[in-house]
Amino acid sequence: MKKSAKIPQPTIVRLPMYFRCLVELKKNGQKLISSEEIASKTGIKSSQFRKDLSYFGGFGIQGYGYKTDELLKKIAHIMKLDRRHSVVLIGAGNLGKALIKYPGFGHWNFYIEKVYDNDPKKIGKKIGSLTIQDINEFPKKCSTPLAIVTVRPESTQQVVDLLRKAGVKAILNFTGTKINAVKGSIVRQVDLTNELAVLLYYLELK
Amino acid sequence: MKKSAKIPQPTIVRLPMYFRCLVELKKNGQKLISSEEIASKTGIKSSQFRKDLSYFGGFGIQGYGYKTDELLKKIAHIMKLDRRHSVVLIGAGNLGKALIKYPGFGHWNFYIEKVYDNDPKKIGKKIGSLTIQDINEFPKKCSTPLAIVTVRPESTQQVVDLLRKAGVKAILNFTGTKINAVKGSIVRQVDLTNELAVLLYYLELK
Repeated sequence: MKKSAKIPQPTIVRLPMYFRCLVELKKNGQKLISSEEIASKTGIKSSQFRKDLSYFGGFGIQGYGYKTDELLKKIAHIMKLDRRHSVVLIGAGNLGKALIKYPGFGHWNFYIEKVYDNDPKKIGKKIGSLTIQDINEFPKKCSTPLAIVTVRPESTQQVVDLLRKAGVKAILNFTGTKINAVKGSIVRQVDLTNELAVLLYYLELK
Repeated sequence: MKKSAKIPQPTIVRLPMYFRCLVELKKNGQKLISSEEIASKTGIKSSQFRKDLSYFGGFGIQGYGYKTDELLKKIAHIMKLDRRHSVVLIGAGNLGKALIKYPGFGHWNFYIEKVYDNDPKKIGKKIGSLTIQDINEFPKKCSTPLAIVTVRPESTQQVVDLLRKAGVKAILNFTGTKINAVKGSIVRQVDLTNELAVLLYYLELK
């Protein structure tokens, strides 16, 4: 199976939703699943689900559905969630701490293995089993390509520049500040306030 | 200006991004803005931006752009971000604590004003200026229609049922568990692990 950059981004964004749904079904012992069941559980149309899967080759059995375990393994493989991924986190504030303790990451094979901050009061302290390290001692070449940034807005770009110089290629940005795009580097923005704002908009339509 | 439920959801999801961008521009003292500048700052195409705005009536001046402050006020008004909104939070764990202390909410007129948990060890303790209250004493009629849920996955549906019974109409769900849809109630799902998974997928394409 060859990956292509041409697969639409909304398809990629839906894959983890299918994955989460299949993990749940497997846990409940359900061996077979129809696209209609996936649809009702994820809120994504069954036709959309089948189209999304079609980008990655043939799945399922005509008029029969999918073997839960098989489909789960295939999606895990596509998403590379079938192996362990190390993550580095910058910014040991409240949100950083919460993310380090967030059990959901480990369930999907993501492990925050290092945490950095620039606050002398925090450096050396522990969060769970991790010791907060000095950002000034960030390695020149970082061994993990995945980083989460939860620093203050005004420090964001500086931290991102440092990470990129050290070879970090993918950044999950919680700072609410836009990070400049750079070729060869990918950024996902998590804007918690946006979500509340969208919720509010629809609330007013109810 | 009449709101319509027919405005595409992606448009609604982009409005907060424009809002954030305009807040930033206003802070920097920029009085006029072109759709091309909005495009370069948000990463959304200028044609898309203009189309999104067109759902809400006429904006901007031909060949001239937009008055930053005026556009900001209009988007704030559409999104109802021009007035204060109370929010109740259920689940005083690490993530709940981080959200209570998250400064971004207040900047957008969202205020977490009450926090509930079911853990006797937490009840009565303080997070910032808020005292953690017993979920069993949740009011029969909640005065705020907006809630954030950061409880354990297995408690999610129970908490949601309680909230809905008390008249909460809009829920921001951080539990990683899907909440059953109910007419007249809106849910937005924040899946932090999904974001890492999407990031990982694109990383592997680089």
